[in-house]
Amino acid sequence: MRRNARSIGIAVVGCGTVGGASSLILSRDRELLRRRSGLDLALKYIVDRNFDNARRLGLDPGLFQTDLAAALEDPDVSVVVELVGGTTVARQIIEKALQAGKNVVTANKALLAVAGPELLALARKNRVVLSFEASCGGGIPIIRALYDGLLANRIDALYGIVNGTCNYILTRMIGTGSAYRDALAEAQRDGLAEADPTLDVSGLDSAHKLAILASLAFGKKIDFSSIPVSGIDRLETMDVEYGSRLGYVVKLLAMASRLNGGLCLRVRPVFISREHPLAWVSGPFNAVSVYGHATGHTMYYGRGAGGSPTASAVVADICSVGLGTQKILFRTLGIWADRAPRAKQVSTDEVESRFYLRFMVEDTVGVLARIAASLGRHGISISSVVQNETVGTPETRPVAAVVIITHKAKEKNVRKALGAIRSLDVVTREPVCIHIMDEHEEQF
Amino acid sequence: MRRNARSIGIAVVGCGTVGGASSLILSRDRELLRRRSGLDLALKYIVDRNFDNARRLGLDPGLFQTDLAAALEDPDVSVVVELVGGTTVARQIIEKALQAGKNVVTANKALLAVAGPELLALARKNRVVLSFEASCGGGIPIIRALYDGLLANRIDALYGIVNGTCNYILTRMIGTGSAYRDALAEAQRDGLAEADPTLDVSGLDSAHKLAILASLAFGKKIDFSSIPVSGIDRLETMDVEYGSRLGYVVKLLAMASRLNGGLCLRVRPVFISREHPLAWVSGPFNAVSVYGHATGHTMYYGRGAGGSPTASAVVADICSVGLGTQKILFRTLGIWADRAPRAKQVSTDEVESRFYLRFMVEDTVGVLARIAASLGRHGISISSVVQNETVGTPETRPVAAVVIITHKAKEKNVRKALGAIRSLDVVTREPVCIHIMDEHEEQF
Repeated sequence: MRRNARSIGIAVVGCGTVGGASSLILSRDRELLRRRSGLDLALKYIVDRNFDNARRLGLDPGLFQTDLAAALEDPDVSVVVELVGGTTVARQIIEKALQAGKNVVTANKALLAVAGPELLALARKNRVVLSFEASCGGGIPIIRALYDGLLANRIDALYGIVNGTCNYILTRMIGTGSAYRDALAEAQRDGLAEADPTLDVSGLDSAHKLAILASLAFGKKIDFSSIPVSGIDRLETMDVEYGSRLGYVVKLLAMASRLNGGLCLRVRPVFISREHPLAWVSGPFNAVSVYGHATGHTMYYGRGAGGSPTASAVVADICSVGLGTQKILFRTLGIWADRAPRAKQVSTDEVESRFYLRFMVEDTVGVLARIAASLGRHGISISSVVQNETVGTPETRPVAAVVIITHKAKEKNVRKALGAIRSLDVVTREPVCIHIMDEHEEQF
Repeated sequence: MRRNARSIGIAVVGCGTVGGASSLILSRDRELLRRRSGLDLALKYIVDRNFDNARRLGLDPGLFQTDLAAALEDPDVSVVVELVGGTTVARQIIEKALQAGKNVVTANKALLAVAGPELLALARKNRVVLSFEASCGGGIPIIRALYDGLLANRIDALYGIVNGTCNYILTRMIGTGSAYRDALAEAQRDGLAEADPTLDVSGLDSAHKLAILASLAFGKKIDFSSIPVSGIDRLETMDVEYGSRLGYVVKLLAMASRLNGGLCLRVRPVFISREHPLAWVSGPFNAVSVYGHATGHTMYYGRGAGGSPTASAVVADICSVGLGTQKILFRTLGIWADRAPRAKQVSTDEVESRFYLRFMVEDTVGVLARIAASLGRHGISISSVVQNETVGTPETRPVAAVVIITHKAKEKNVRKALGAIRSLDVVTREPVCIHIMDEHEEQF
């Protein structure tokens, strides 16, 4: 082991869950990190307005600093770690740091999803780097897999379970038959969902990560605002259970695949067959499946959130910046969003998949025939039908659930068919439509 | 995209499955690789004695070269890719290439497992690098995860399904109830097992990979010859089925974990609960679970063999060498085996786990009590017992299978108990003992 490890001065900005855990690792594990990385990672500033969490973690009060400028003016600081979150103050912090000639490491997916190319360009202009392993998949080194491990591949598709809160809620719904509301309440009680869970359960957080992952995987600029997003907040227990009986597990998936010369991105709950390894990603864990033209299917699994796992990614980035490898990759590779062409983002209309459809209908003669006829008119053929439950009280007319699994069909045709079926007088409620994700075909 | 991509001259030595696929990617995908990596990867020589495979793949005969020296003397060649395999000729090729000042990329696990430190030292002496992503896990970027993505972690344990042939055979045994012999024959027919499958089914190939993975994960020199290895060739269908009924899946696991201040390495078939993501790795796929002190459980999944997936790893290494990142990592990190201290490899005696035990006994009164008493005398307590099948012909005395799942026990105690039970007069055959791998506890 070399004695004179190069020293890398670090300022951590924002000492919440991830900032606190990162500061703790840098302080407590300095000798371990020196042995492994050959670098002396010297935490010099913890910048925040409030140091309650920092004190609770026993971090050195000598590092506490309320003035960002002090850290930016210190020539010994070469890496600024932005862990404030959000898109306003955080953006200013990152911009100031880059302009001050500091390398920036961040976990800020919301900001990178909308302003990635501009920030990367600003880093390039200032001859520093912007690293963001911690923005997606917590402790899973998925960003590196895309820009390094899979570099020899044309990536054809990427499917990710990238929101631990949603996956925890869905795992509870599947395992215990809980309703969405109850599973959410349990997640909140267990500290796995925010008091306001909108960003997670709406699918928006997954879409942020999808924009970042897809940009790197496909080497394109992604327009975040045109990604269609559905969340898990309207999922019904009944569908989770029907799916389960049919051999499927419901997951909120962030998906990107090549389609008709363009790129089709979407976030939505889908049914995955139990044969697929993504189906077994449970609780707060995340996983991303990536299909490369040479490597075929690879998958990356781990804790997608939490202080310590995310801090693992933050510190890995600090090491790469300190070693200088990140600078080489940032200068040389052709996949960074600021240099990449704009993706041709195509709508989901042409995506072909199988579908799970559920209709609540009046339990009268000929209903199924009318639904089947309507599907047929739109070119959708039926693979299987389940109609085995009648619900309703003596006062109401009996209502049955008709569940149909289609063969492969284009989404636009299914949408049209559902429009027609919705208006049938025997259909009592809005139809439910869930995509079934079959294994992506490997291209060798 | 920059027009003047730096040119990297490459010689591929050995044009078999992986060498052919690597040469094909370098030739066919040169423009894709230039766009992504910013490098012009120029394949200059395909060195072999026989070019049948190279011709079959349509590779440029202008590249064919039977004389290694010609490639080594060419100053434009900066990377030599050794894909000959084996430990004799391959070693000479690597040594000559390093001595000629060429960087070396290799997939040679057998050689690295036994001579890794010497070869790394030779590379260092000649101021070049030796890269080996392709040696473990085929197209899975697992080596990079260990030296880069997980760099901030103290690795506490590593469990891998790292032999596709074995996993394919076991998946067939589980899925179809085939006997080992039949499943092996099917694997051979499907091109997933060699005519002589010894290296795979004996567990030796997994042990090679374990030595390499553990060396990087723990930053230690590993003595390959002291890794205890059992293969899958003596597994019986009956145990696969009992395990399955009890909720377990049998997998050949390469395992490394910290124990009593040392490192416990072993390769053996184990039962994994269906809750664990490794249980769902089926067919020829591989996966490695790594437990870091910061990141907790992460897992890396993909095709563990085959030309194209392994070539993906080879080309990723060529890119890292060409970019110069590999040189920095090799110079700076403290985890490379040539610089690392020798591991204190401890025996499996002290490993605690649950055990699946099967005894074939004469179906007479009091047998179970005698077995239970013997286990109890060695401090092993029983969690559950299954005794529900009597086999035997009218001519023989009835024989029953007694299956016992123990609570956690030390391996040495189980071994002693089995020694005692084996000598009971009612026990008709050698007892079967399979470890049950429970989830490794994450350390946060």
